[in-house]
Amino acid sequence: MKTLGQFLQTGDWKGEKHVPVIHAPEKVKAGEGFDLKVSIGDEIKHPNTLEHHISWFKVFFHPENAKFPVEIGDFKFTAHGEGEVLDEPVALTNVKLNKSGTIYAVSYCNIHGLWENSKEIVVE
Amino acid sequence: MKTLGQFLQTGDWKGEKHVPVIHAPEKVKAGEGFDLKVSIGDEIKHPNTLEHHISWFKVFFHPENAKFPVEIGDFKFTAHGEGEVLDEPVALTNVKLNKSGTIYAVSYCNIHGLWENSKEIVVE
Amino acid sequence: MKTLGQFLQTGDWKGEKHVPVIHAPEKVKAGEGFDLKVSIGDEIKHPNTLEHHISWFKVFFHPENAKFPVEIGDFKFTAHGEGEVLDEPVALTNVKLNKSGTIYAVSYCNIHGLWENSKEIVVE
Amino acid sequence: MKTLGQFLQTGDWKGEKHVPVIHAPEKVKAGEGFDLKVSIGDEIKHPNTLEHHISWFKVFFHPENAKFPVEIGDFKFTAHGEGEVLDEPVALTNVKLNKSGTIYAVSYCNIHGLWENSKEIVVE
Ligand SMILES: [Fe+3]
Ligand SMILES: [Fe+3]
Ligand SMILES: [Fe+3]
Ligand SMILES: [Fe+3]
Repeated sequence: MKTLGQFLQTGDWKGEKHVPVIHAPEKVKAGEGFDLKVSIGDEIKHPNTLEHHISWFKVFFHPENAKFPVEIGDFKFTAHGEGEVLDEPVALTNVKLNKSGTIYAVSYCNIHGLWENSKEIVVE
Repeated sequence: MKTLGQFLQTGDWKGEKHVPVIHAPEKVKAGEGFDLKVSIGDEIKHPNTLEHHISWFKVFFHPENAKFPVEIGDFKFTAHGEGEVLDEPVALTNVKLNKSGTIYAVSYCNIHGLWENSKEIVVE
Repeated sequence: MKTLGQFLQTGDWKGEKHVPVIHAPEKVKAGEGFDLKVSIGDEIKHPNTLEHHISWFKVFFHPENAKFPVEIGDFKFTAHGEGEVLDEPVALTNVKLNKSGTIYAVSYCNIHGLWENSKEIVVE
Repeated sequence: MKTLGQFLQTGDWKGEKHVPVIHAPEKVKAGEGFDLKVSIGDEIKHPNTLEHHISWFKVFFHPENAKFPVEIGDFKFTAHGEGEVLDEPVALTNVKLNKSGTIYAVSYCNIHGLWENSKEIVVE
């Protein structure tokens, strides 16, 4: 059976401009909102043109010991020069957790496919 | 001809918890990135449950004197308690403009429909 | 107050290639699934290139006498030549209604903005 | 390194109601549009309620010997009983290919997470 999982590329965001970087605290309080920010290649900028751009992020949370991940958000960057407007691949939202677990971020480049990263968060 | 535009509700966000609030500078420099944040009812909190929640924001830009608006981004909040995760209706991204114009934000509540707000931005 | 509704363009789909065409029965039975198809400019083809394409449809339903519309679906066409793949702006899904009302379809062209159409459906 | 790929579940759609079923021809002509339909559990119906439903499909194409997959479309089912409207998890669109390769469909259940399926298509 072929799986799309084989195409989920990753790497060190310091050297690879496609890897989503997850900005969030390492510890949070149960049920207390915290800012979750996802950006791309914080050290090496990815192109942002109509021909070649980061199209979206999806963010999931996998609660420790749970069987399934839960989708947190879906963020699309849709202006790539039309009308002289550019949207940069940066997304921040506010999240509340009740259990410790792992955040996963997936990004999609229209030329270089799917990329992912993860970050563990402890709920105190 | 019926138009969906008739359902685009608005109001003062200080009194109406569904109106998207657009946080952005009033003046920006051409081609220089600025943070554009959209939130909901900054003074009166909207419910965030599976039965009743803000589902998404869309953000558009209408360049002064242009005929058409350009979509900047599309932000979906997908966790409403599943797996004890909540995503709050807050979205921030980074935008570059070359011309003055108007930002429009649209929000959707699964019970109370479509809401909008706008904010003019001058490009210096 | 400026409204995005002013940019919801429409027209006769026989002469205007941006207008979404809603294909659905005029009468349906309560709670019985029917195919709802949305296409673009059935008589005049719209371009489908990276530089100029129909990016998405959104579909809403407004139940007769209700105060608010309900979003039915959101359909994005994301391949515009990358990897030699093209997705045409056609979307079909299956819908169940319990009350008569009006379907609204909105389409977005990355160059020519927002377009809409509507169709009444009677539930027997 | 943890990967979201570990959560991409699959199975035989005849016995598993979450697996997306890809309906497409096994052979198509280069550059000629064909209908691509994705549905869920064609033999065993999945629940469609606000508390438990299939939320979206994403569809990708991996051209033979290419390094990266290309996203074809993103289809969200947003009505789960609000306003007495239901959208069933069925999506059809129209696709053109120039090379043989593999279609991947991913579905997301708000309770049971991510599921996938794939189908090879030969371009003659
Ligand atoms: Fe790239
Ligand atoms: Fe509400
Ligand atoms: Fe156009
Ligand atoms: Fe399920």
